Amino acid sequence: MPAIAAALAPHTGAAQVIGLTGSPGVGKSTTTNELVRALRARGHRVGVLAVDPSSPFTGGAILGDRVRMQDHATDSGVYIRSMSSRGHLGGLAAATPQAVRVLEGAGCDVVLVETVGVGQAEVEVASLADTTLVLLAPGMGDAIQAVKAGILEIADVFVVNKADRDGADATYRDIQGMIGLGERAPGGWRPQVVRAVAVRGEGIDDIVAAIDKHRGWLVEHGELRRRREARAAAEVEAIALGTLRDQIGSLRNGTALSDLAARVAAGTLDPYTAAAQLVANLP
Amino acid sequence: MPAIAAALAPHTGAAQVIGLTGSPGVGKSTTTNELVRALRARGHRVGVLAVDPSSPFTGGAILGDRVRMQDHATDSGVYIRSMSSRGHLGGLAAATPQAVRVLEGAGCDVVLVETVGVGQAEVEVASLADTTLVLLAPGMGDAIQAVKAGILEIADVFVVNKADRDGADATYRDIQGMIGLGERAPGGWRPQVVRAVAVRGEGIDDIVAAIDKHRGWLVEHGELRRRREARAAAEVEAIALGTLRDQIGSLRNGTALSDLAARVAAGTLDPYTAAAQLVANLP
Repeated sequence: MPAIAAALAPHTGAAQVIGLTGSPGVGKSTTTNELVRALRARGHRVGVLAVDPSSPFTGGAILGDRVRMQDHATDSGVYIRSMSSRGHLGGLAAATPQAVRVLEGAGCDVVLVETVGVGQAEVEVASLADTTLVLLAPGMGDAIQAVKAGILEIADVFVVNKADRDGADATYRDIQGMIGLGERAPGGWRPQVVRAVAVRGEGIDDIVAAIDKHRGWLVEHGELRRRREARAAAEVEAIALGTLRDQIGSLRNGTALSDLAARVAAGTLDPYTAAAQLVANLP
Repeated sequence: MPAIAAALAPHTGAAQVIGLTGSPGVGKSTTTNELVRALRARGHRVGVLAVDPSSPFTGGAILGDRVRMQDHATDSGVYIRSMSSRGHLGGLAAATPQAVRVLEGAGCDVVLVETVGVGQAEVEVASLADTTLVLLAPGMGDAIQAVKAGILEIADVFVVNKADRDGADATYRDIQGMIGLGERAPGGWRPQVVRAVAVRGEGIDDIVAAIDKHRGWLVEHGELRRRREARAAAEVEAIALGTLRDQIGSLRNGTALSDLAARVAAGTLDPYTAAAQLVANLP
């Protein structure tokens, strides 16, 4: 991996990275599919990185939703990669930028990164994009859940999908209300809210227009460079932590950690003292 | 924190820890509320630890759901604590066992730990319980979503909540089918599946019975001690990683990380080399 990383380094930053996140069932895959169609129609080479939590039960990612993406499987201008969230040194925060770089190296000028947006790790990954779309659907737990999941802060564009359903207007209003409550610096970006019915292709052009508008703002305010440096910093930090985690993991194979854990479980040692002993034993 | 941890160490393991997780909207708070009622009726002192992802937007956890728990706010045998997932050294995996220990120290003999079960961190926290309940509801993305979220493997008891709704039978069958596909060692625990309508208090006794049955199995197979040692090991490891993360964070305040990140963003340095340099600079 490090050797490949060195070879890919010059391709860094070639593509526009669009994050797309939301709770299970809001229509992320359908929306991604339609966005790919719209971006292809504009002549872009499009990479799709679908981040699925992996399951030890199956040993890999469950790709049920990906079946829909087969619409684009024979299009040579579309690259699709599914990625599980386990087994990567440094986790998603390290693995995702690397995978984006691979797609950039393959000539993609737009990369869509689709994640399930409820866990902290997935939220952090989405926040590493140039532009982050947060999908909501009526009656899916609504705006308060978006706040709870920490996704309100990372959204540059909200998409109220399934906008033909009951409750769509309420969801739209709630989100606008929450945006109104947020603090913004003068000249700061005010998140856009777009209605869509992705399954019928409705609202997709509006989403693309909102992405374009945000892109213009990023460039105008020097934010694009700032975001990319922040993304690189998070990646480097995650890899460094992964290295240290591996070092601790190698201690786990010895008896050090299990001896300490048995004493903590028995109540004869507190976990902070145990952790300090563990760190002191690192190479 | 370390001094308090030392004082609390002797209380470790005094309580039965029950994890309760599921996607937003499946009825976790209502079910927790009803379980507290049932356990109180049996004479237990009950602690509730509600883990909410925190939000930088508000600077704290959103406790909307907790309002419902006010049913028990005047009961001196019930302790309720809401916890956000940020700002803890070592994150949830470290903070949760410590908070459980506080509730044990307060005399609780049962502690319910409620988490949103979609993110990896929350799944890991739930898996640290003696017995883990996974709540599902009809039409919420169904069984395949449970697999995607990695929660199938950690469930000791499945609760199909809102069992009076359309699709409940299908959800029940799907889960039973998935359980049938799983591999189990001889004598291994086969996850129980219980139907409930928590909002009307229906099925709560069945949930308690399933917890009791699992508790019996844990004791009989020496699993209780094994789980608690695994929980302690995860806690110690998480605190150790938190310490190392803090050390990296202190580097962030200097120019080391930002200089490296700027070079990675510019494509003149690969992130693995940058991470190695970062680790080499640790104290």
